[in-house]
Amino acid sequence: MSVALDPLLAPLPADRPQVERVARIPAGFVAAGATAGIKASGNPDLALVAAEGDAIPAAGVLTPNRFAAAPVRLSRANLAATGGTALACGFAKAVVAASGSANAATGPAGEADQAVIGEAVAAALGVPANQVLHLSTGVIGLRLPVEKVTTAIARVAAGGLAATDEALHAAAVSLRTTDSTTKAATVTVEAPAASGDGSVSITVTGIAKGVGMIHPRMATMLSVVLTDATASPSTLRDLLRGAASGTWNQLSVDADTSTNDSVFLLASGRAGAASADDNLAARGALATALEAVARDLARQQAADGEGATSLVTCQVSGAADDADARAIARAVVSSSLVKAAMHGRDANWGRIAGAAGNALVPEAFLLEAAGLSPAEAASRAGQPAAVDPARMRIAIAGLLAYDGATGGPTGIDKAAAREAMAGDEILVRIDVGLGAGTGEAFGCPLTEGYVQENSEYTS
Amino acid sequence: MSVALDPLLAPLPADRPQVERVARIPAGFVAAGATAGIKASGNPDLALVAAEGDAIPAAGVLTPNRFAAAPVRLSRANLAATGGTALACGFAKAVVAASGSANAATGPAGEADQAVIGEAVAAALGVPANQVLHLSTGVIGLRLPVEKVTTAIARVAAGGLAATDEALHAAAVSLRTTDSTTKAATVTVEAPAASGDGSVSITVTGIAKGVGMIHPRMATMLSVVLTDATASPSTLRDLLRGAASGTWNQLSVDADTSTNDSVFLLASGRAGAASADDNLAARGALATALEAVARDLARQQAADGEGATSLVTCQVSGAADDADARAIARAVVSSSLVKAAMHGRDANWGRIAGAAGNALVPEAFLLEAAGLSPAEAASRAGQPAAVDPARMRIAIAGLLAYDGATGGPTGIDKAAAREAMAGDEILVRIDVGLGAGTGEAFGCPLTEGYVQENSEYTS
Repeated sequence: MSVALDPLLAPLPADRPQVERVARIPAGFVAAGATAGIKASGNPDLALVAAEGDAIPAAGVLTPNRFAAAPVRLSRANLAATGGTALACGFAKAVVAASGSANAATGPAGEADQAVIGEAVAAALGVPANQVLHLSTGVIGLRLPVEKVTTAIARVAAGGLAATDEALHAAAVSLRTTDSTTKAATVTVEAPAASGDGSVSITVTGIAKGVGMIHPRMATMLSVVLTDATASPSTLRDLLRGAASGTWNQLSVDADTSTNDSVFLLASGRAGAASADDNLAARGALATALEAVARDLARQQAADGEGATSLVTCQVSGAADDADARAIARAVVSSSLVKAAMHGRDANWGRIAGAAGNALVPEAFLLEAAGLSPAEAASRAGQPAAVDPARMRIAIAGLLAYDGATGGPTGIDKAAAREAMAGDEILVRIDVGLGAGTGEAFGCPLTEGYVQENSEYTS
Repeated sequence: MSVALDPLLAPLPADRPQVERVARIPAGFVAAGATAGIKASGNPDLALVAAEGDAIPAAGVLTPNRFAAAPVRLSRANLAATGGTALACGFAKAVVAASGSANAATGPAGEADQAVIGEAVAAALGVPANQVLHLSTGVIGLRLPVEKVTTAIARVAAGGLAATDEALHAAAVSLRTTDSTTKAATVTVEAPAASGDGSVSITVTGIAKGVGMIHPRMATMLSVVLTDATASPSTLRDLLRGAASGTWNQLSVDADTSTNDSVFLLASGRAGAASADDNLAARGALATALEAVARDLARQQAADGEGATSLVTCQVSGAADDADARAIARAVVSSSLVKAAMHGRDANWGRIAGAAGNALVPEAFLLEAAGLSPAEAASRAGQPAAVDPARMRIAIAGLLAYDGATGGPTGIDKAAAREAMAGDEILVRIDVGLGAGTGEAFGCPLTEGYVQENSEYTS
């Protein structure tokens, strides 16, 4: 006789391809990391990624913050110019990323600075400036040292770009600010060949940075995802929005949405795979690989959140629908009180229940990105997620803490829970008991280290 | 020649009656604080406030948390039973408050516990149980020691209730959990006499507790407001919702909306004032006094937020409308990064700009409470507040830090700002430059003390 394990006490089952936490440059790209001198520390602070040949299909998801930084605004304009629409997809030759200054809230002078940087990249690579996408990260309100940056760009373009994994890794290193780790993820899957004969391997590789002002509402801080799969700009946009909605949009370090959040996805088509535009299997393969890379990068970002001592994952099942499940999961990982309890490895399920009871479904544009129709999104936006205390169940690190159907508190053994919560990842599992909706979100503990890091100096 | 001071560098002008931070019991009420033994510390933990005669008009605003506690649910049911509606107004004889256990997420057993407490109060005072309103505060998921509570109720009812300021102060003391101060506020204003001949003084006095899980979406944790003015239940409800929308609903300690938030307003009518139902001057006087009491209690709660070292007030002018102004103010005081910067007395205006750029107008029911029509509320709910970086100006502690119209950063003197931010209250002033909307919000710094208090033990 087999014992049926309560699925609430285990992670949600998932069939995802294996993710390697390395940068593996796909065919058709070159990259470099360099030190321009933006950071006072002298650490690498300039990343450049480019297509080997002409401009290739590209898409972005960008912060909705009304104080969106100059690089965000310029990237949006450039994608519109090359894509013929304002929908954040078009064609790009290169992505340039500066680390150490966000170039946000810097006014017209900051816009001009970013344009000069774009011109420098364009001149070095021999393309129009609107084929350059821009990222930056660092202190808000600080001007970029433009001359240092353009000098470094010319130097890198003259000989520093290489089609190697090491070069892409160097680019990832250059993205870092207060990150304690370099964040990269690679997935390789099979997709139908363009020739119609058999399959080819496609690679999706992403680099990213965290680690504060992280509460993406459309994307997150500085991620670049490259693939050798084949797809048009609008297909890339749809796939990227879909992948971001369940991964980066479910990430919170401190509930502050950045002025600089940006993810770009570029596709070189060099794998020789069939186009994801019209081949369903190719589209599925790219979507699967992209979602796995995005999810893993989001988890790396959460685990390295400022002051974080572990990753906190909340997985929700049994919600009325997926939108509710995601809203509940995100409310739990965003709660200051839950985050402080996780720091103390305290199985404080009451705070989890309180946070779940406050969950609100997000804005309409995020719901549309997650696949709801515009009408559905409009009617759901900002509404409370359905929660019934008499049906909800909560487990922490595999221990049942609350079971609404049997009266509520289970009398969880706090000492055993503390032991179970001692690892690198704390899993909070919630079953809402109302439907079939599932979702997850990623966060981290709130620690004295976070407070110190963010109160002791301007960062 | 006079120098025109920039109004951005000063607090928003306001014409408010003077508030005394004391409990002053209005005519027609009795009160008591007692020690039932709920708290392990042995500190007072039971408060009882009652009308001297028959049940009087009462209204409540209660948490929308889906895990609303047993006392919240019972109070809502009792107001519906005595008021004939489900709109949280009716008639009440008494308010009973237990401190040390929230009686939230305790399931049917917790509901039964709260009913027993209501029966005990009702029996002691000789009234139906549905004339008793309930409050509780403390750890979520913990059962109340019902026998200790009912024993204390009988003891207090037998001789402990008094129509004195000291008795009401004792009730306020009994509300406290991790509060470091006892919170009370009193305003006395003139209102037209019921006789039609001249005016009488009406008193509005409120007691409240803070200090964690504070991010009211309809009301806040444990406040009781008493007045000797005259008004019907539905008038009280309208006035209380209006007052809460600009005060308690603009308060955030940690962005966690409680399971137990409750404010009750009871009116004895003993001042002999004309009814606020149909006398506009009487209504205005009561509204003014109520708003001043609510605002002052919210400020006391913010200043005593867990781990707080000062009060942080954000006042916004020039927004497209008041709803936008309130949303922007609330986004600023709720931002973890702004809060950490305030702790370090760092004039980090970039984080303030970032938070303002993320502001979302809240849910429809909150907008209706603030005076918008249902149709307006539905169309505005969850939408971003209008912000234009080229028009916004930001001042911190009287120093201009950002001026969008002149290029952005002003190069604020950080050392001078640190000096100016050294007081008990840090004022962040924002002018949006778009319209005539004003609003304010109250918060506190994020400190290591908050993290310690909330990670080291279940609270």
